[in-house]
Amino acid sequence: MNDKIIAENNKVLKRIFNLDTNAFAEGALDKKTKEMIGLTSSMVLRCDDCVKYHLGKCHEMGFTSEQIFEAFSIANLIGGTIIIPHLRRAVEYWEELEKEA
Amino acid sequence: MNDKIIAENNKVLKRIFNLDTNAFAEGALDKKTKEMIGLTSSMVLRCDDCVKYHLGKCHEMGFTSEQIFEAFSIANLIGGTIIIPHLRRAVEYWEELEKEA
Amino acid sequence: MNDKIIAENNKVLKRIFNLDTNAFAEGALDKKTKEMIGLTSSMVLRCDDCVKYHLGKCHEMGFTSEQIFEAFSIANLIGGTIIIPHLRRAVEYWEELEKEA
Amino acid sequence: MNDKIIAENNKVLKRIFNLDTNAFAEGALDKKTKEMIGLTSSMVLRCDDCVKYHLGKCHEMGFTSEQIFEAFSIANLIGGTIIIPHLRRAVEYWEELEKEA
Amino acid sequence: MNDKIIAENNKVLKRIFNLDTNAFAEGALDKKTKEMIGLTSSMVLRCDDCVKYHLGKCHEMGFTSEQIFEAFSIANLIGGTIIIPHLRRAVEYWEELEKEA
Amino acid sequence: MNDKIIAENNKVLKRIFNLDTNAFAEGALDKKTKEMIGLTSSMVLRCDDCVKYHLGKCHEMGFTSEQIFEAFSIANLIGGTIIIPHLRRAVEYWEELEKEA
Repeated sequence: MNDKIIAENNKVLKRIFNLDTNAFAEGALDKKTKEMIGLTSSMVLRCDDCVKYHLGKCHEMGFTSEQIFEAFSIANLIGGTIIIPHLRRAVEYWEELEKEA
Repeated sequence: MNDKIIAENNKVLKRIFNLDTNAFAEGALDKKTKEMIGLTSSMVLRCDDCVKYHLGKCHEMGFTSEQIFEAFSIANLIGGTIIIPHLRRAVEYWEELEKEA
Repeated sequence: MNDKIIAENNKVLKRIFNLDTNAFAEGALDKKTKEMIGLTSSMVLRCDDCVKYHLGKCHEMGFTSEQIFEAFSIANLIGGTIIIPHLRRAVEYWEELEKEA
Repeated sequence: MNDKIIAENNKVLKRIFNLDTNAFAEGALDKKTKEMIGLTSSMVLRCDDCVKYHLGKCHEMGFTSEQIFEAFSIANLIGGTIIIPHLRRAVEYWEELEKEA
Repeated sequence: MNDKIIAENNKVLKRIFNLDTNAFAEGALDKKTKEMIGLTSSMVLRCDDCVKYHLGKCHEMGFTSEQIFEAFSIANLIGGTIIIPHLRRAVEYWEELEKEA
Repeated sequence: MNDKIIAENNKVLKRIFNLDTNAFAEGALDKKTKEMIGLTSSMVLRCDDCVKYHLGKCHEMGFTSEQIFEAFSIANLIGGTIIIPHLRRAVEYWEELEKEA
């Protein structure tokens, strides 16, 4: 679907997609810290697909379950119990990633 | 005001306040990563007072301006231009912290 | 300002304003329960002016501080610590109402 | 899934889960008022799973359809028509609960 | 489901449903501009069902893909990359509408 | 403050600022429609500074009060009465713009 969106040739959308790669690249903050930011921002904003995307990246980068759960706990404290259903789906997905590995 | 809230003796509120200290303590994730999570979650949720609180902590922990701006940039990309007025107030406050130091 | 908005003669806005009175009137749910709903919905949506409006109504209706703080605690649990700055302003306003009385 | 989350032994998450039971217990506000708060806060924050959870509790507590619809109407007025799809799913679930009973 | 909600005879909900028709009628702003407002407000508030509803209306009104994508791009810029999963589903639905025609 | 942010030389932030100009330029949708989108998206997301910014643009472009109030009414219907305090501030600002002219 991303390819189709890019093919549509809308300059603003294409640049937003490009910026995404850019923003999470190694910089003054390392990639792992940035991924933690991406994961928790997605969680407090309650976007399941975004959480899954960042969990995938976090898994590739070698984060431990304990670290992921600490990130989850901060997101749930800041964002409240309204996040619990998203937490459940996130935990389920993280388990799948762990099993596959 | 926090003291007054705690004095009110509401068990749930008191525990939420306590959890806040707990969640940001050194753990499987280090304190600095957790502070980055706190800062950016506050920014995507557009809470100026929360952003200020975490900027104060970030300053004490020795984050550089370049690092803070990278965190800001991820928050603004994820949360969109609706965040720009909050970014302005955050940059203003960060400058004050830098000048005082 | 409400008068000016109504004077503008926009039918949709006028009806929304009217509905507000309607929705909080005594019905299958009593007025006090509805006011609790108004207060806490305003708090989880983090609207300070709306919280103040409903606190004023709650005060007129004779809610105790203990009851108000229980409502606050549920809102803060559901909505998370991002609500704390709004809680502080709400507590401050509630104290003013209590002092005036 | 809740059991798995608790088994993960993250102190902050465990306490948030515990607080949830605590906050909705009988207190200065009775349980039914608190459930109304939980239901409507979940609705204005547009969390379908949370709405379902509270509808289940409301059903057990003996709320009538008329009362539930008054709560829905306040949530929809405060939160706007963006809530309508969530209202539809809530009404559907409430009907199921009524049929089962 | 709308019929059932209306049959429930809750005055506030019925009026909100009526207002919806009213607000999008031809007026000082033409219907097409209002539909653009409905589409993009739904997108920044991240309501997939609402986006679909307005895309259907936009299709009937003869908006071109290029116009729809410009509306999408503004919504994504204002609302941030958290909207991307909703954008994907919106593009998919728009394609279906185009194919059916 | 914008100049300072740009001077900080963060590539992602600079590009987001640039995209903003881009997205609202004349295109398949005309500038006036885009401004209506900007205004109402800002209102449903409850960002006073963003609303003011777009009201300024709308004023320059020659929108009438009746048109602005229709846009407001759609935003308030979609976003709910939680938007009323923002509506008040928007109406106040619009009046100032009208008086100055």
